[in-house]
Amino acid sequence: MYSLGELADRLDLPFSGDASRAITGLASLASAGPGDLAFLSERKFLQQLLVTRAGAVILSSEYRPECPVDCLVSDSPYLAFARASRLFSGAPIPAPGVHATATVSPSARVHASAALGPNVVVAEDVEVAAGAILDAGVYLGPGSRVGERTRVYPNAVIYHDVWLGSDCVIHSQAVLGADGFGFAPGPGGWEKIHHVGGVRIGDGVEIGAGTTVDRGALEHTVIEDGVIIDNQVQIAHNCRIGKNTAIAGCAGLAGSTIIGANCTLAGGVGVVGHVEICDDVHITGMTMVTRSITEPGSYSSGTPMSTTGQWKRNAVRFSQLDAMQARLVRLEKQS
Amino acid sequence: MYSLGELADRLDLPFSGDASRAITGLASLASAGPGDLAFLSERKFLQQLLVTRAGAVILSSEYRPECPVDCLVSDSPYLAFARASRLFSGAPIPAPGVHATATVSPSARVHASAALGPNVVVAEDVEVAAGAILDAGVYLGPGSRVGERTRVYPNAVIYHDVWLGSDCVIHSQAVLGADGFGFAPGPGGWEKIHHVGGVRIGDGVEIGAGTTVDRGALEHTVIEDGVIIDNQVQIAHNCRIGKNTAIAGCAGLAGSTIIGANCTLAGGVGVVGHVEICDDVHITGMTMVTRSITEPGSYSSGTPMSTTGQWKRNAVRFSQLDAMQARLVRLEKQS
Amino acid sequence: MYSLGELADRLDLPFSGDASRAITGLASLASAGPGDLAFLSERKFLQQLLVTRAGAVILSSEYRPECPVDCLVSDSPYLAFARASRLFSGAPIPAPGVHATATVSPSARVHASAALGPNVVVAEDVEVAAGAILDAGVYLGPGSRVGERTRVYPNAVIYHDVWLGSDCVIHSQAVLGADGFGFAPGPGGWEKIHHVGGVRIGDGVEIGAGTTVDRGALEHTVIEDGVIIDNQVQIAHNCRIGKNTAIAGCAGLAGSTIIGANCTLAGGVGVVGHVEICDDVHITGMTMVTRSITEPGSYSSGTPMSTTGQWKRNAVRFSQLDAMQARLVRLEKQS
Repeated sequence: MYSLGELADRLDLPFSGDASRAITGLASLASAGPGDLAFLSERKFLQQLLVTRAGAVILSSEYRPECPVDCLVSDSPYLAFARASRLFSGAPIPAPGVHATATVSPSARVHASAALGPNVVVAEDVEVAAGAILDAGVYLGPGSRVGERTRVYPNAVIYHDVWLGSDCVIHSQAVLGADGFGFAPGPGGWEKIHHVGGVRIGDGVEIGAGTTVDRGALEHTVIEDGVIIDNQVQIAHNCRIGKNTAIAGCAGLAGSTIIGANCTLAGGVGVVGHVEICDDVHITGMTMVTRSITEPGSYSSGTPMSTTGQWKRNAVRFSQLDAMQARLVRLEKQS
Repeated sequence: MYSLGELADRLDLPFSGDASRAITGLASLASAGPGDLAFLSERKFLQQLLVTRAGAVILSSEYRPECPVDCLVSDSPYLAFARASRLFSGAPIPAPGVHATATVSPSARVHASAALGPNVVVAEDVEVAAGAILDAGVYLGPGSRVGERTRVYPNAVIYHDVWLGSDCVIHSQAVLGADGFGFAPGPGGWEKIHHVGGVRIGDGVEIGAGTTVDRGALEHTVIEDGVIIDNQVQIAHNCRIGKNTAIAGCAGLAGSTIIGANCTLAGGVGVVGHVEICDDVHITGMTMVTRSITEPGSYSSGTPMSTTGQWKRNAVRFSQLDAMQARLVRLEKQS
Repeated sequence: MYSLGELADRLDLPFSGDASRAITGLASLASAGPGDLAFLSERKFLQQLLVTRAGAVILSSEYRPECPVDCLVSDSPYLAFARASRLFSGAPIPAPGVHATATVSPSARVHASAALGPNVVVAEDVEVAAGAILDAGVYLGPGSRVGERTRVYPNAVIYHDVWLGSDCVIHSQAVLGADGFGFAPGPGGWEKIHHVGGVRIGDGVEIGAGTTVDRGALEHTVIEDGVIIDNQVQIAHNCRIGKNTAIAGCAGLAGSTIIGANCTLAGGVGVVGHVEICDDVHITGMTMVTRSITEPGSYSSGTPMSTTGQWKRNAVRFSQLDAMQARLVRLEKQS
C-alpha cells in the first residue's frame, strides 16, 4: 500500500489530488475501484476515463482536465504504469539462503545473499552472484554463471557453460544450453556433432516459459543485453540476438541466424538458418523468413483467413498461379 | 480384468454373448485378440469387424447382425469406448500421503486424501483439495489452489495465485501463471510490466505437456470448465477460453484473446491479440487468425502443399498477385 | 588434449605435419588458433583455409596442396569433424552411482554402472541399463525402461510404460508418454480416452529439449532407430517415425501420422493426422502437410516474405483468386 503522495515520489511524477489517498492495487480504468491506480495510454479509452471509479489515474497532461479523479501526470503513461506495476507486483521474493534440500557442489561459489529454493542443484564450478534467486528444482550445470539479481523460476534447466548476466528473468521449463541440432550423415545414419560452444546471455534479458536456447557448435550462442523473449520460443545453436530485440511466443530461429538490435518478431515467426536480419526490422505474426533482410522496416508472409469454403476455392487456385500467369501473358499478346 | 457382464453393467449397455467372458484389455478391431474389447464407430471399419478376433465389440445396433463375436450395444460407440478406456487405464494412481522428500509450507492446507510425490514443493497459503495428486517434482507457488481429484503430472510448475478447479489433468512441464509478455518501451530499453493478475482454471480442464498459460496483467487469465488443451500450446496473458473449447497442439494465442465456448482450434493455429472469437467456431490447422470472428462456422488460411519445384513457381506469382489483378483489369477494359 | 598423431589414430585418418602437435580444442577456420583443429567441408570456405591460423585442418585430399598448416585427410571432412567433436565435448559425464537424494523404488532394477543424479525419481518396475545416465530431477514412471548408455538430461519426464533403447539422448523438459489428445464428445462435454498404449523408442535416438511424444491410445507410439528430433517438436499419439528420419524444431505431427525412413522435416512443419509419408521425403520449413505423400522428393507450402505493404496488397488478392480465375476464363472465351 502506498499513499498517492508516496507514489508520486517514487515514480517522480507530479500529481493532483489527495496526497494521503491510499492506493492498494492496480486495475484497468473500467474495473478500478477507489483503492486502485489505473492509467490512460490511448485516446480510445477516453470514455472509460470519464466514468472511472479509480482512486487515481496515470495520464498525460492533455487529459488532466477531463479526469474525474486524482491523477499522476506523465509524458509516457504506459511506461509510468510499468514502473508502478513493480511496486504492486505480488510475485513472492524468497529470503536469501540455501534450502536444506538443495544440492550444491563444494566448488560452486554462491553469494550469501542469493536464494536457493528446495531441490535446487548447483554443479561444480558454478557462480551464483549477489541477490540471485534460484527457485525450486532449478538445475545449474558445471561452469554456469548467474549474474546479480537474476531470477530463475522453478524447474528451469541451465546446462554447463551457460552464462547469464545480471537482472535477467528466466521462466520455468526454459532450457538454456542443450545441444544444437547438428548431425553429420554417416554410413550407418546420423553422427552427432558434439557442441563445444556455450551460451552467453547479457544483462536484463527475459526468457519465457518453455523457451529453449541451444548451445553453440564451436562458438557461443549469444543473446545481448535487454533482449526479451516470450514463451516457447526456439533459438538454435549459434544464433546471435541483438540488443533490445523482442521475440514473441512460438517463434523459431534455425541455426546460425543473426538478428540485429531493436527488432520485433511477432508470434509464430520462423526464420531459416544462416540468414542475417539487420537492426530495426519488424516481422508480423507467423511470417516465414527465408532470406536475409538488409533494410529496416516491416515484413510479412502468409495468407488471409476466410471461411473454409472460400479458402478451399482460393487455395486450389494458388496451385495454378503459374499457369494463370501464362494465360495472362497469352491474353496480353492477343489483345 | 472384467467379465463381459460386469462391463455391460458398468457402462450401462445391453450386450449379446457370454456374460462370463474375461476381458483383459482394449485393442483395435484389427489387432484385438480373444481377451480384448474393441469398438466400431465408423462404417469404414466394417470389413475389420467381419474378421475381428476380439472378445467383444462395442457397436451400434445396426451392425449387431454382422458382428462375429460378442458385443455391447451403444448409440455412441466411441463415447462408450471412452468410458471403457477408464476402466482399463494403466496410469498408476499413487496412494494418499505426503512423500518424505516433499517440502510443504506450514501454512499450506493439504487434504489428508491428497497424494504428494517425491520432491513436490508446496509454498505458503496453498490449498490442495481431497483426492488431488501432485506427482514428483511438481511446484505450487504461494496462494495457488488445486481442486478435488485434480492431477498434476511430474515437474509441472504452477506459479503463485493460480487456481485449478476439480477433476483437472495437468501434464508434465506445463507452466501455469508465468508472467505475460508485457513490456513498455523506455528510454533505456524495455521496462517490464509486472503482472498482478493470476490464472483461474475451471473444473474438468485438461492441459497438455509443455503448455504454457500466462498470468494476467491486471485481471486474471481464465480457462472455463471442460476446456481441453493439447501439448505445447501457448495461452498468453488475459486470454479467456470458453467452456468445452478444444485447442490442439502447438496452437498459440496472443494476449487478451477471447475464445467462445465449444470452439475447436486445430494444431498450429495462431491467433493475434485483442480479438474475439464467438462460440462454435472451428479453425483448421495452422490458420493465422488476424481478426475477430463473429459468425459460427469453419475458418482457414494457408496454401496447399505441392512439390517444391511446383511450389516455387507458384509462390513467386503470389508476390505478383496485385500486379496480375491490374493486368486483368486492363484486359477487361480492352475486351 | 590430443597430439595430432593421436587424433589421426583415433579418427583413422592419414595426416601431414607434426605428429606431436598439441590439439586442445575445435574451432572454425576463421577463428581457430594454433591449438585448434578446424575443418573444410565446402569449397566456399577455401579463402578461409588459405589464411587459417589453425593447428590442423580436416579436409579432403584435393585441398591438401593449398593447406598452409598441418592436416588430417578425409573423404568426408564433416563426418570426420563430427567424430572429432566427440573427443573434445565438454559435456560433463557423471560418475556411476545413485545420488543420496534420489528416490528409487525397491522393485526397480538399476544397473550398478548407471548414474542417477540428485532428486531423480525411479518408480516401480523400472529398468535402467548399464551405463545409463539420469541427470538431476529426471522422473521415470512405472514400468519404463532406459537402455544402455542412454542419457536423460535434467528434469525430463518419462511416463509409465515408455521404453528407450540404447545410446539415446533425451534433453531437458522432454516429455515422453503423456496422454494423447483423445476425447469423445459426450452429452456434458468432452470425455477422456484413457490411453493404454505406451511409447517405444529405438536405439540411437536423440530427442530435443521440450519435445513431447505422446503415448498411444491402444497401440504404442513408435520412434525407430536412429531418428533425430530437435527441440519443441510435438509427436502425437500413435505416430510412427521411420529409421534415421530427422525432424527439426517446432514441427508438429498430429495423431496416427506415419513417417517413413530417411525423411527430413524442416522447422515448423505441421502434419495432419492419419496421413502416411513414404521414405525419402523432404519437407521444407513451415509446410502444412494435409495429405499422404507416396512419392519420394521435396515438398513445400507457404508464401514468400515481402515488405508488409507489398504483402497486404498481394494477400488481399489471394482471397480473390477464384474470382480472378473466373475472369480469366471469361476473357479467354472472348478472345
